[in-house]
Amino acid sequence: MTEETRPGEPLSGPTPTPAAGTRLDRWLGAYAARTHGMRASEIRALFAVANRPEVVSLAGGMPYLEGLPLDVIGELAQRVVQTRGTTALQYGSGQGDEGLREQILEVMRLEGIEAHPDDVVVTTGSQQALDLVTRLFVDPGDVVVAEAPSYVGALGVFRAYEADVVHVPLDAHGIVPEALETTLADLAREGRRVKFLYTIPNFHNPAGVTLSRERRPRILEIAQRHGVLVVEDNPYGLLGFEGDPLPAMRSVDDEGVIYLGSFSKTFAPGYRVGWAVAPHAVREKLVLASESAILCPSNASQLAISGYLATCDWKGQVKAFRELYRERRDAMIGALAEHLPDATWTVPDGGFYTWVRLPDGLDAKAMLPRAVTARVAYVPGTAFYADGQGADHVRLSFCFPTPDRIREGVRRLAGVVSAESELVSLFGTGGARPGDDMQSPGPDLA
Amino acid sequence: MTEETRPGEPLSGPTPTPAAGTRLDRWLGAYAARTHGMRASEIRALFAVANRPEVVSLAGGMPYLEGLPLDVIGELAQRVVQTRGTTALQYGSGQGDEGLREQILEVMRLEGIEAHPDDVVVTTGSQQALDLVTRLFVDPGDVVVAEAPSYVGALGVFRAYEADVVHVPLDAHGIVPEALETTLADLAREGRRVKFLYTIPNFHNPAGVTLSRERRPRILEIAQRHGVLVVEDNPYGLLGFEGDPLPAMRSVDDEGVIYLGSFSKTFAPGYRVGWAVAPHAVREKLVLASESAILCPSNASQLAISGYLATCDWKGQVKAFRELYRERRDAMIGALAEHLPDATWTVPDGGFYTWVRLPDGLDAKAMLPRAVTARVAYVPGTAFYADGQGADHVRLSFCFPTPDRIREGVRRLAGVVSAESELVSLFGTGGARPGDDMQSPGPDLA
Repeated sequence: MTEETRPGEPLSGPTPTPAAGTRLDRWLGAYAARTHGMRASEIRALFAVANRPEVVSLAGGMPYLEGLPLDVIGELAQRVVQTRGTTALQYGSGQGDEGLREQILEVMRLEGIEAHPDDVVVTTGSQQALDLVTRLFVDPGDVVVAEAPSYVGALGVFRAYEADVVHVPLDAHGIVPEALETTLADLAREGRRVKFLYTIPNFHNPAGVTLSRERRPRILEIAQRHGVLVVEDNPYGLLGFEGDPLPAMRSVDDEGVIYLGSFSKTFAPGYRVGWAVAPHAVREKLVLASESAILCPSNASQLAISGYLATCDWKGQVKAFRELYRERRDAMIGALAEHLPDATWTVPDGGFYTWVRLPDGLDAKAMLPRAVTARVAYVPGTAFYADGQGADHVRLSFCFPTPDRIREGVRRLAGVVSAESELVSLFGTGGARPGDDMQSPGPDLA
Repeated sequence: MTEETRPGEPLSGPTPTPAAGTRLDRWLGAYAARTHGMRASEIRALFAVANRPEVVSLAGGMPYLEGLPLDVIGELAQRVVQTRGTTALQYGSGQGDEGLREQILEVMRLEGIEAHPDDVVVTTGSQQALDLVTRLFVDPGDVVVAEAPSYVGALGVFRAYEADVVHVPLDAHGIVPEALETTLADLAREGRRVKFLYTIPNFHNPAGVTLSRERRPRILEIAQRHGVLVVEDNPYGLLGFEGDPLPAMRSVDDEGVIYLGSFSKTFAPGYRVGWAVAPHAVREKLVLASESAILCPSNASQLAISGYLATCDWKGQVKAFRELYRERRDAMIGALAEHLPDATWTVPDGGFYTWVRLPDGLDAKAMLPRAVTARVAYVPGTAFYADGQGADHVRLSFCFPTPDRIREGVRRLAGVVSAESELVSLFGTGGARPGDDMQSPGPDLA
């Protein structure tokens, strides 16, 4: 090609490719090491099908938004632009709007957290907060300790930063202190660098269990004794079905805990507003990292949420959500008891999910295509482990479908399980590869 | 601490700290290597002062939003929530709303780009797109080639991923092809891995220059011959003051270029909506990386912009912005000629910035506190280099202040320059350390 080539003409001449590039991807040889495990989930294509209206999806983590006062929220959105437009539409603070950070303190006070607005960093959903925390702390090969099972989106982040995830078992009362103690002691003996414990104390995703009040100080004490930071991810804490929220771990340890919060489940995920509360020095670095990643969070989104908190009965709305989701939890648990007597499951006191152990010999991932054919979808348990465990479990969510649809979904699932069990008893199990579906199943599974 | 400790009580007992933790930061020993160069800019505190109303800020890159039809935009925001609320407020596609991606094609068509909606990935501002591209390609120690000078926010991203930035000179017609050729040949001889060329072809930030029509195919040919991907960052392309936009580099090479676009300068930054257009295989990885980073971009923001593009005269608005910024450019250039005859500067054909070389012997960073005291602010040239160059330059922006304020700001700056020159001729130069202000000066400098 010479200078005479005009823009608009295709490039001609030799087109050498970088080392190891291919016809399908000229840049194949150029990617960073951190991308090598990156691939679309095998179950992703199935979920495209699962989103069809005839399928009952017990897979997604989408909140049910039809109860929100859309008229009022729309008027608020209008007012923000018309009265504060040159702020709402402009760049803002990298740390987030100060007024919203004040209001976030009110939200967190419901779980016993006392903090200062300076401690809060507003992020593009709490997913970004988790990405930034991992960016700050994790070098390739560092250990992150997480519950077994753990949130699929967190495992994706840890993998993106080439962390080595070590799981610690959960039981009905949350992460098991003795197991955490043993794991951290073993890792210390092996000279491994543990960067943090990632935990979802309330209404766990996917396990549905809650860390008991008694265990909370024990977990903090163990982490502190081992010099391990705790990352407390708490999107569901206000969505408990009985009694008051338990005190957040951050409420008793402001130097050893990074707390992640979100409006996605208590209000709406479409604004993508979450936050982190971190010890002072960490918070400063979080702001710098966030500015590097996105410059600043959306002022339009932040002011819309700020207006909602200031003028709407947001606590009443959270209460309405709690009642809605409790009814759906009851529908789910009732249907499981009726249709899947050979399975076992957790009975969540809040949140969106139950964790179901299938009858012996079944493989949740191998069974998924047949379930989707039978017009019901779930997430196979392997998605929630970094190490291939979980084939005998499924996560069922009760947040989005109506109670009738939930019952119908469980009925369909029971039919699939029954047929599958029969096959297994005749021919033995199938052969799905464990762990393959850990990567990015997409926002549907948030 | 024992099991009896109740939540709410402060933790007592021994509080061992991780290796190398300090009283000021218990986690100091735990940070990842990528954070080691991370620190707040020294000039950041000054900019807090510079944002006071009595200071004329020629530092920021904030677009001027008062001309936007806020009433109409407010009504659109309302309509989106009231008619499509359960979509706008819900999680969305990790790749971005399909309708908006279609509309983005229309925007890009103005610069000769023909693409498919599948090629587009919507991001939280184009800053996030740049972060994700760097995440996909850069291992620590890899080379990124960038213009000298280059966008401060890009240099921050490259540093966050531990890239080694190698600068290639610009002149009045953009990046110099011969210099690019020599640099890439030298790097190849040294066996360095060059991951991409980062370039801002139109109305360069901070240099104000535009890559000429003639040079565009030459730059592409050189990059292609060396197997180097081109990242074309184009936030200002539609904001040219004369004639039609030049064809984007992406318009002539769809496999060798990743194009980054943004609504921040042609509409409003407060929604944080930008995008990347990438070769198919790269685009797939971008979506996975974005889902890991934020799950999905804001549906509320995307649908608000989609409504604006669909129902408002957005091309007319871009034209109004062009006229507004041309008038301000003229005010800036006129004032420079009048008040700073010993300096030299670029005369931009569009965008937000001019790049001013100070009279001999002046140090832009050392002078900044005195400028702020004289109620005018700018960004010292060192912010725009990875290697400490630039102390003899300042970036002046003409996007936000009115023409009168611009003239007043340049007049004040001239007073500071004059006093400083006198000091220099008496005592020699001061001693600011070069390169210190590269890190994250905050969203104000976008």
